[in-house]
Amino acid sequence: MSSIPKSTHLGHHVVIEDGVSIGENVVIGHHTVILQGTQIGEHVTIGSNCVVGIQPAANEKMRKESPTERNLIIGAGTKIGHLVSIYAGSTIGRNVFIGDHASIRENVHIEEASVIGRAAIIELNTTIGKNCTIQTQAYVTGDTTLEDNVFIGPCVSMSNDKYMGAQAYTLKGPCIKQGAKIGNNASLLPGITIGSNTIVGAGAVVTKDVDTNIIVAGVPAKEIDA
Amino acid sequence: MSSIPKSTHLGHHVVIEDGVSIGENVVIGHHTVILQGTQIGEHVTIGSNCVVGIQPAANEKMRKESPTERNLIIGAGTKIGHLVSIYAGSTIGRNVFIGDHASIRENVHIEEASVIGRAAIIELNTTIGKNCTIQTQAYVTGDTTLEDNVFIGPCVSMSNDKYMGAQAYTLKGPCIKQGAKIGNNASLLPGITIGSNTIVGAGAVVTKDVDTNIIVAGVPAKEIDA
Amino acid sequence: MSSIPKSTHLGHHVVIEDGVSIGENVVIGHHTVILQGTQIGEHVTIGSNCVVGIQPAANEKMRKESPTERNLIIGAGTKIGHLVSIYAGSTIGRNVFIGDHASIRENVHIEEASVIGRAAIIELNTTIGKNCTIQTQAYVTGDTTLEDNVFIGPCVSMSNDKYMGAQAYTLKGPCIKQGAKIGNNASLLPGITIGSNTIVGAGAVVTKDVDTNIIVAGVPAKEIDA
Repeated sequence: MSSIPKSTHLGHHVVIEDGVSIGENVVIGHHTVILQGTQIGEHVTIGSNCVVGIQPAANEKMRKESPTERNLIIGAGTKIGHLVSIYAGSTIGRNVFIGDHASIRENVHIEEASVIGRAAIIELNTTIGKNCTIQTQAYVTGDTTLEDNVFIGPCVSMSNDKYMGAQAYTLKGPCIKQGAKIGNNASLLPGITIGSNTIVGAGAVVTKDVDTNIIVAGVPAKEIDA
Repeated sequence: MSSIPKSTHLGHHVVIEDGVSIGENVVIGHHTVILQGTQIGEHVTIGSNCVVGIQPAANEKMRKESPTERNLIIGAGTKIGHLVSIYAGSTIGRNVFIGDHASIRENVHIEEASVIGRAAIIELNTTIGKNCTIQTQAYVTGDTTLEDNVFIGPCVSMSNDKYMGAQAYTLKGPCIKQGAKIGNNASLLPGITIGSNTIVGAGAVVTKDVDTNIIVAGVPAKEIDA
Repeated sequence: MSSIPKSTHLGHHVVIEDGVSIGENVVIGHHTVILQGTQIGEHVTIGSNCVVGIQPAANEKMRKESPTERNLIIGAGTKIGHLVSIYAGSTIGRNVFIGDHASIRENVHIEEASVIGRAAIIELNTTIGKNCTIQTQAYVTGDTTLEDNVFIGPCVSMSNDKYMGAQAYTLKGPCIKQGAKIGNNASLLPGITIGSNTIVGAGAVVTKDVDTNIIVAGVPAKEIDA
């Protein structure tokens, strides 16, 4: 049995599995499911109809993930919306905001005060620095690195597999350096680096590494004047 | 306590908070959560596992929204799918259709007979006219105006922040005039106006105002012959 | 009443309507809703907070779907994530994987061992062959055909209505031949055919039929050297 502090504000029909730890003054919405081993810091808010602490699954075709031994850890003061899914084996920092319908996979690390937008998806093995903003419906692929203060516009798309499943290949998402900003609906190809403080225009398709402190736009993306 | 008419068809484990009003012949699916102050018109249908009437939340980094005093109002005959989230302070007209997994923020006004597609997202302070169609996975950013009979194709993306969080700026989404049609996966930049009955091609990136009654396509979008 | 085998592993607050059939060794997560007539094969896993077996609905503006007489059929060994919606009248093959937040409409046929990514959406009247991969957030429009071994990258967008609702028109999505691969965030226009083993680059906008065994990229998409 999990021990639930008296200060917890629990909605109706909440399911809390065994081995869950809950800090003081936590709010959990109606119908939310907290799966085994989840650790929730103090003053965390979780909305209704969420599922958190999910163990990875796969079919034969997908890369095998052994069940993660690590728990989901949610830092103090973090706010999670409604209808959100989060996997075991990830660490969410303090004062993070996670929008409704968002999904965060296993082995993801999100540092403090970052914002994960509504319906945004963060795939496995990804690191997101401090004070990042990932906007609505953005897709952060697996094996990706976002340094601090990165801005990812709405509907940005990334990929991490050059051969689209056709060859053995070490999957590698983009590396986006400190303070870079990616415009809405831009597409980033596998393994590219976006330099610090660089701006990528809306709808750009970035096919290779981009220098620091410049602006790129177009298909394929090229440097433009500010 | 909320008073629930005898004609209501309630699923299992439905949660209805205080101060909710429900018209005659309403259907509410299993596990759906109706939060405080929601007003539901007659003959409204709401699917399973929805959360409606949500109060806005934010972390320190996001623009502060004071709790809205206004309720969520859902007009007669409107149909809402499954796994949908809708905020307080918005008004949904009569005979609107809202697809599964859609999300509608606070201070949104949707007029009668419009369709909000599956997994489409409508951000705050946005107005949508009559008989509009917002297709699947489309993203309508905050502070946006859609006049009547506008068509937004699947996966269309919009933005409302020219500086991507870097400067103080009055956020402003696109203004899309009567009868305009936006092709699938097009990207619209902040503050632009799309003229009435104009067509934007699939995948176009619209960087500035577009005249009435023309067709534009490409990156950046330019006028083409019909 | 539906008869539930003793080998079923049921979460809390699961709702199972009448006329549901469940094979041996099925797992159903917390708060999941199994609607009337759903047929679940043996060794199927369904996550928490899902809604499966949904009857189609529409408002006056949308194309009318008569209620489907056919049930939802889920093949043996298939794994379904959390917060998923699936409609009645569709057939999911054996050992399919369906990610969290995905949505599958009525009259869809998915053959064995295919993967439907997280938050991917498959619209009505669509056929997906064996061993296909539909990645995260991809949008497969209605009336679409994917042959075997097709790869659809993340955030790919398709459409099936040339006139965007303006004219009577037989809706027709793309036809994607055996082994073709579509890069992330590419846009496919209505009714086009992508030849077998052809590769479409990330962010491409495909406006007409594409031959077999080539690579296309750009806006509009043109053949490039490998």
